[in-house]
Formats: sequence, structure tokens, C-alpha cells
Amino acid sequence: MNISDSNNNRWSISPTGIAYPIPNDQELDDSVRLLTDEAVRQRSLGRHPVVVQGIGAVGTAVAAVLSEASTSQGAPAFFVVAVDLPTPSSYWKVPQLNSGVAPLASADPELDALLARGVHEIGNLCASASPNVYGIAETIVMDIGVDVASREISSASEIEVRFDPLRSAARAVGRTMSPTALVLVETTLPPGTCETEVRTILTEERARRGITQPLRLAYAYERVTPGPNYVASIKRTGRGYAGVDEESADAAARFLEQFLTASVAPLHRFETIASAELAKLLENSYRAVNIAFIHEWTLLAEAMQLDLFDIVESIRIRTGTHDNIRNPGLGVGGYCLPKDPLFAEWAGNRLPGHGVSLPVTSQAVQINRLMPQHTVDLVVEAAGGDLHGRTIAVLGASYAAGIGDSRDSPSLPLVQGLLDHGATVVAHDPYLADWPEMPHVQLVGDIESAIAGADGVVFAVPHKQYDANVIQGLTSHPSSLFIVDAQNIVSDEQAQILHDTGHRLIGVGKGHWLRKGFNQ
Amino acid sequence: MNISDSNNNRWSISPTGIAYPIPNDQELDDSVRLLTDEAVRQRSLGRHPVVVQGIGAVGTAVAAVLSEASTSQGAPAFFVVAVDLPTPSSYWKVPQLNSGVAPLASADPELDALLARGVHEIGNLCASASPNVYGIAETIVMDIGVDVASREISSASEIEVRFDPLRSAARAVGRTMSPTALVLVETTLPPGTCETEVRTILTEERARRGITQPLRLAYAYERVTPGPNYVASIKRTGRGYAGVDEESADAAARFLEQFLTASVAPLHRFETIASAELAKLLENSYRAVNIAFIHEWTLLAEAMQLDLFDIVESIRIRTGTHDNIRNPGLGVGGYCLPKDPLFAEWAGNRLPGHGVSLPVTSQAVQINRLMPQHTVDLVVEAAGGDLHGRTIAVLGASYAAGIGDSRDSPSLPLVQGLLDHGATVVAHDPYLADWPEMPHVQLVGDIESAIAGADGVVFAVPHKQYDANVIQGLTSHPSSLFIVDAQNIVSDEQAQILHDTGHRLIGVGKGHWLRKGFNQ
Repeated sequence: MNISDSNNNRWSISPTGIAYPIPNDQELDDSVRLLTDEAVRQRSLGRHPVVVQGIGAVGTAVAAVLSEASTSQGAPAFFVVAVDLPTPSSYWKVPQLNSGVAPLASADPELDALLARGVHEIGNLCASASPNVYGIAETIVMDIGVDVASREISSASEIEVRFDPLRSAARAVGRTMSPTALVLVETTLPPGTCETEVRTILTEERARRGITQPLRLAYAYERVTPGPNYVASIKRTGRGYAGVDEESADAAARFLEQFLTASVAPLHRFETIASAELAKLLENSYRAVNIAFIHEWTLLAEAMQLDLFDIVESIRIRTGTHDNIRNPGLGVGGYCLPKDPLFAEWAGNRLPGHGVSLPVTSQAVQINRLMPQHTVDLVVEAAGGDLHGRTIAVLGASYAAGIGDSRDSPSLPLVQGLLDHGATVVAHDPYLADWPEMPHVQLVGDIESAIAGADGVVFAVPHKQYDANVIQGLTSHPSSLFIVDAQNIVSDEQAQILHDTGHRLIGVGKGHWLRKGFNQ
Repeated sequence: MNISDSNNNRWSISPTGIAYPIPNDQELDDSVRLLTDEAVRQRSLGRHPVVVQGIGAVGTAVAAVLSEASTSQGAPAFFVVAVDLPTPSSYWKVPQLNSGVAPLASADPELDALLARGVHEIGNLCASASPNVYGIAETIVMDIGVDVASREISSASEIEVRFDPLRSAARAVGRTMSPTALVLVETTLPPGTCETEVRTILTEERARRGITQPLRLAYAYERVTPGPNYVASIKRTGRGYAGVDEESADAAARFLEQFLTASVAPLHRFETIASAELAKLLENSYRAVNIAFIHEWTLLAEAMQLDLFDIVESIRIRTGTHDNIRNPGLGVGGYCLPKDPLFAEWAGNRLPGHGVSLPVTSQAVQINRLMPQHTVDLVVEAAGGDLHGRTIAVLGASYAAGIGDSRDSPSLPLVQGLLDHGATVVAHDPYLADWPEMPHVQLVGDIESAIAGADGVVFAVPHKQYDANVIQGLTSHPSSLFIVDAQNIVSDEQAQILHDTGHRLIGVGKGHWLRKGFNQ
């Protein structure tokens, strides 16, 4: 595109520092005309136009999977246009995706491979920043993130759900969508709000346009698993869905079946959209509660000097009833687990009468929020009570193993807690080049440098790079280290060797190390 | 035996009304002499003498399984003597077991078959009430139940564990046990108390007797599952165990291997007995917490008129991470789930400093205790707000499907709640001849009689007898009934038919029945 500064002096800068000029309204309208013609051409090739709204982590992967989907004859099934906003914070994703690269780095190499293939080889994938592009689509997939204003709440009445991005997105769709297109919402939402928010707005906008055909609206929550199998997790995980009517639900099922691997990813149809919304929240709240549950038993086992990993292993043999029981760890991370239970609390609190409370779920959310503080306490204990003047190497900054995503990582409150205690922190993560949420902490590129000048080492994320070689390296560290293992990375045999070579060890859930005097 | 009333005027009366004279001390001593000679004879046949202390549900089944166990040559491996107290409340179990019949009726026909075989055919199983019988044993298995004084507590500091039966039992063992015998404790205990209670007492008594050999003491908690596969669940479930020293642990492993099915029931050795004690509590607390968790979401789903069974089904497809999620129901029953979490709270509360609390676990225990009240509320709602003058048929009084055991059944607080609201209750249970905890409630023998004069029916236990025929029968009931399904017994199709034939329905977790107006 040929955009001069005289037309447009607004810029959007990517996280890697590339500045993109944001197109003006005229340029956006021009691009819609081009895309409309292109959609006609693609349709003549048998490719159904789909617009994916939101080029976040999920939207990008969904667009990639759709571009790969093929008809029973083996031809590309869709023409995919991914859309985000022409704003400084969002626009850069559009040119980046148009160059065949995922805006957010992923641990899954298949993502960039699919994007490159869709953009450069098949030619059925592109991105746009125009709010008027929805009219070309037979299916509009909404992947707009909805969050709470703050996750630090003390009662359900304090929870504030930020619907504004979703509302704007729905309004944009309603203004230009084809009357017969299917709108499929994938966003995690408080139960009932796909209807009260999205359906209401779409109905309003369509009425304004004089559209009389019934609205085709369906809901199917995402179950994508971040990490090295991100793309596969979209295709190979069953989905729950529902529609505002039978026709919408049928249309959603036909659409989902085009890219889901039928043999392993069954569809589950709910009677109502609220059921599907609740299912997503229950699924993640189940996980959150079981993390909090094992954390409180971790504290008990440590105080009793017992090995909780060994105990959990003995219980997990009871498959079907007990094998979901979790292991001790640093904390809960990621975008969903800390937030989704709050959506359910919010919905329960707004029910008539006194509402419905979720005491176990709420308690779990509070425990999980404070969970990394326990590892901070262990570091202080391992250091002999004072972190002032101590340098601590934190190994792992992303929110889970094998993932280059530090959003809501439990390493964040861990490091903040260490800093609050007066420590100097050096961090390492094999998947992160920088740590946007923690800009003042040095993030070094190799483990040896991180450990070289440290007084203590914390294993914070179970990345596969933190292996026997790294632990072997610690034994020959020139001075005595304290080592805090928050992720069951150091085996008992390795702990014995580290202790024998003069180091002190404490571990989350590893009460038996205290019994054996490894902390002394 | 020949016991005249002149010797003994104390009697022990079985639940079925048979009166047994309790032997006096002289008679008990005579019986020990006979058993001692018998043990010599059995030993000459290669059968190792084992005493099982406690003829409760678990002790009886353990004795039966041991009597069946055979050596690699196929000969009986043990001579088994089951022991209980010569008291009015306990003695009747001894003659009953000596007649080859289980003291507590079981849903598992194999139990009585094994007992009859051991007593009458093999001749390697008998019972005794003598406190001096332990000397004959190479292995003493302690199956003495330990409970809390009250389960209705509001904080951990109120929990009172009743160790007295265990202490007396340990003292009896210590007074007469062979110096080299293995004592294997199977009782569920707060972590640390096998050592502080049993080990301390055995050590005291052995010191008093001048025994200098090391005490062989081990712990292996039971994982028996009540119901129609009771006996098989002992043999085919892996066990966690530990000893006070390596020799004790080795001896326990050799003993357990004699009757466990190796291919399906692995042994898990813990470093300490406290680990094994904690493992049992964690295993059951995990279950208790997940029941409470789903109950609070049940209330949410009902208020939102959603079908929680359908939602849970959609989540359970995620095997390995989510398939342990529970279904809605009436409540938690049985001897273990309501009590075991309290043992952990008690132990945590007694730790140095401020102790360790288990907020999620404690919250869950409280929710589970009040859980049946929700079904009471649904019955009141279904009846239009008032139960005075109403007769309600409660189908199911035992604490789980297929079990003839009403101890700690959630049907108990359900019925009590209905009575408190002024209802007349008629109960039915295919596995119970009487209901000792609820003597004033009529327990009728057939379902038709229970329902005949009822205004409302509650499905309280998912016994297989409450089948399509029973539900079909309700459709032709002469008057309009209200039906409360607390156990997912009535399908949606059946509910539609029942509603069409004039009945009103409400169900735990069945919010969609409200949406469909089945309650009107």
C-alpha cells in the first residue's frame, strides 16, 4: 500500500518495534472494495468467505486453521479475512499477518507455517482493519476478548466485566453483515451475556437496516491449549455449541465440522447458549478449584515434612475418580483460569433475590491469587530471612512450560514479591526475548549468565531446558547457593547431591527435604 | 459352647434380635487355650495365624479375603481369627461370624460365600471375643474405627477425635502380642497419630513385658468400596503402606501381596507412616471438595434454568484433566467422606505456630453437610410451599446405590428436614429391612405401597430398582403427584410424559425442567 504521512500521521508500533502507518477511512474503504471483489473471485473457486474478528492469540490460530480446512474434494474450504481495529494498539497485527507471520510469537511452529501457506501459497488468507468488511462473509467468527476490570476483588459484587470491546465489535458486525450470515461467538462470557449483549446489539443494528430475516447467531467456546500443540488443539478438541434457534445451531455445526477432526473432536450441542457459556466457566473453575485445593494441602504437607508429590502419585492410580488430582506448583497462570470463575460469580451475584454464591470457587480464586507468595516465603526462608543485597535467578517467566507468553504468569507476582523483599532479580526464559510486564527486571539469554552471580536460584517454570545438565551445573557453582524448586524439577537424588555439595534446598510440596535437612 | 445363665447374665443382642450370652472371663480364657492349640495345628498345615481386630464392615471383609488367600502351591495361606469385644454392643458379631454369616448385611454375595467357606469348608476362619488371643498371631491387623465426637463443627479447633477405642485396642494387642509379630494398622487416622497413639502404647506395653526385640509396626489404609463388589475391591485395589522401619515395611508388603491381585493392585511404599495417613485423607477430601464444588454450581445452574448434567457430560470428555468432575446429587454419605477431611483439619490445627488451615476443604465439608437441605427446599417448592398434611414417599434410605447401609446416609437429613416441615414420610429401600437411625419412619417393603398414598415422591438413592417400570407406574398414579428427582433417575423424556399426565417435577441439577415448566 502507498500511504504517505500527509494522509495519515498515526502509527501503530509492533512489540518488536516496527512502526506501521494506520490507514485513514478512505484507504480502509478502498481496501473493502478490493476485498469484496476478491471474495467474489474466491467464492467462484468454492471458498466460503469467513471473517474472523479479533487478531489475538485465539483469532490468529482460528484464522490459520480455517485457511487450512479443505472440502471433501480436497480444495480449500474458506476465504479467510482476519480483522482488527485501525488503532495504534491493534493495527500492527494486520500488516504483520498479511506478511504471513503470527502477531504473537507461538511455541507452535505449525502456526506460522499455516499462516505463511494461507497468505503466500493458497492465497486464501489476509487481514484487514476496515470496520466495513463484514458484509463479504457467510460466517463471522467473533474472537474478541472480554475481561474483568480487576482480578483483585474481595466479593462478587466488586466484579466488573468489561463488555465494551465486545459491544463495539458486535455493533460493527451488525452494521455491515450480510442478512443471512452466521455470527459465531467464541469469546468466554458470563452465562446469558451472549444473548443480552451480542444478540441485542445485532438485532438493533439489523432492525435499523430494515433486515427482516431471522438472525443466525451461535456460540461455541474455544478450548485451545496454548503451547507447542496450539494449532492441533483447535482441530483435535471437541466443542460445545448452541444457537439462538435450530437453524443457527445447525449452521454452526456444519461450520465447525469443516475444520474439526471428527474422529477425536466430537461436537456437543446444548439446548441454550447460556449452557455453553456456563460449561466453559465450569470447566476452568473445576481446574482452578483443584489447584487451590492441592495448594492448601501443599502447605499442610510441608509443615508435616511430607512429600506431597509422592502422595499425589499414589492417589492418581485411581483412574476415573482421582487421576485429575493436581500436583503442587508455583501458581496459576494464563488468561483464563484466574478470570473465568469470576464471570460465574458475577452472573450468580446478579440473579434475582440474594443471588447465588459460589463459596468454594470464590475461596479458590483468592487462594490461587496469593499462591506465588508461598514461593516468595520459601525463598526468604532459604536465604535465612533476608533478601536485601541478595541476587536471585528466577528460571522461567512465561505462564506455562514450553510457552512464550508471560501474560498473567505466576512468575510475575513471584518476582514482584522478591523485589519487595529487597532482592535483585535476574530472570531467564528460553521462550521470551523480553518481559513486557516486568520491564525493569533483567531477562538474560542463557542460563549460565543468569546463575553466574546469583546467591539463590528459583525454578519457577518447568521448561524442558531446565534439565539434568542445568542441575549438574549448580553442583559446581563456585559459592553456596540456595535453591527453591517450585515446579518439581529437582529429583530427590539430585537434591541429595546438591546438598552434599554445599547448597541449601527448599521445594514446594517437598516437605521430605526439610525432614532430611536439605534446607540446612 | 456351653454357657449357662448362672455363669453369665449379660447378653448381646444382634440387630436382627438374636440374644447371645456374653462369655465370662473364665470362658474367654478357655477359648484362648483352644485357639492356641488350634493355631499350632493350623501352622503345621502351613497356615500363618492372623488376628483381625474389629469385626466391623471392613474387618469382616478383610477376614474373609484372608481366609480365601492361598500360597503359590494353592493351599490356604492363613489361619484367621477375627476379634471383637465381649460387650453387649459388640459380642453378637462373634457367634454370628462363627456361624459363617457377616454381622452387617452386604450387597456383595461373595462376602457371605467366603465366610461360609472359611468357617465350614476350609476351617481356617473363626471369631473370638477374648482380649488375650493376640499371642497366637504372626500378623495382627487392626481395623478399629476412629471417629470424631461430632461432625457438626464450625471451626477446626472444635474437632475432637475419639482415639479411645483405638487406644484400648492397641493396649490389648501390646499386652499379649508375640514379640516378633507384625502389627498392621488399617484404620483411617489423622497424620502422625499411628505413631503417637498406637506405637506409643505398643512400646509401653512391650516394655512392661520386658520385650527388647524391635517393634514391627506398619500402616496400610483401606480403600474398600462398599457395594456389590465389596470383596473384589479389597483384592483388586492398590494399597499405600509404610512401616516404622524397613523391616516392618517389608513385612507389610509380603503380607499384603498374599491377598492382593498383583496385576491390578500395585503397592505404593511411603517413606513415613504419616505420608500414608495423609494420602488416605487427601484422597477422600479430593472427592468431598469436588462434590461440594459441583453442588454450588448446581444451585447456580438451577437458578439459571440450565441442565447441569448435560454440561458436566460435555466437560467429562476431557479425560485425564476433567473426567473426575462429579454430577449433581442429594448429598455425601458413608462413613469416610464427611469425616476424613476433619482429621486433616484437626492435624493442621495442632501444628506449631498458628497451625495450617484448609479453607477450601473446610468450606466443602460445611457445604456437603447442608447439601441434603437443598432437596428439602425443592420438595417444599414442589409441594407449593407447605408440607403439613402431605405424605411423601422417599425412595432410598441407604447411603449409596446397591448398598444396605444407612449409616451417614444423606437420606437421613433429607427425611428429618421433611418431618421438620410437617410432612409424613414413608420410606422405601430394597436393601434395608429397617432403618435404625430413623426408627419412627415407616420403611415399607415394596415401592407400590410406598407410593400408593403419597402426595409426593422423592428419588433419593439411585438404586437400580427405581427403573422405567417404577416411573411408568407414576404416570398412572390416581392423583397428581409432585416428584423430586435428586439423583438423575428420571430422563427428560420420562419427565415430559409425567408432566403430560398431570404431575409436577423438580430435579437437582435439572434447571431445564423449570425452563420447560415441568414444575407447574
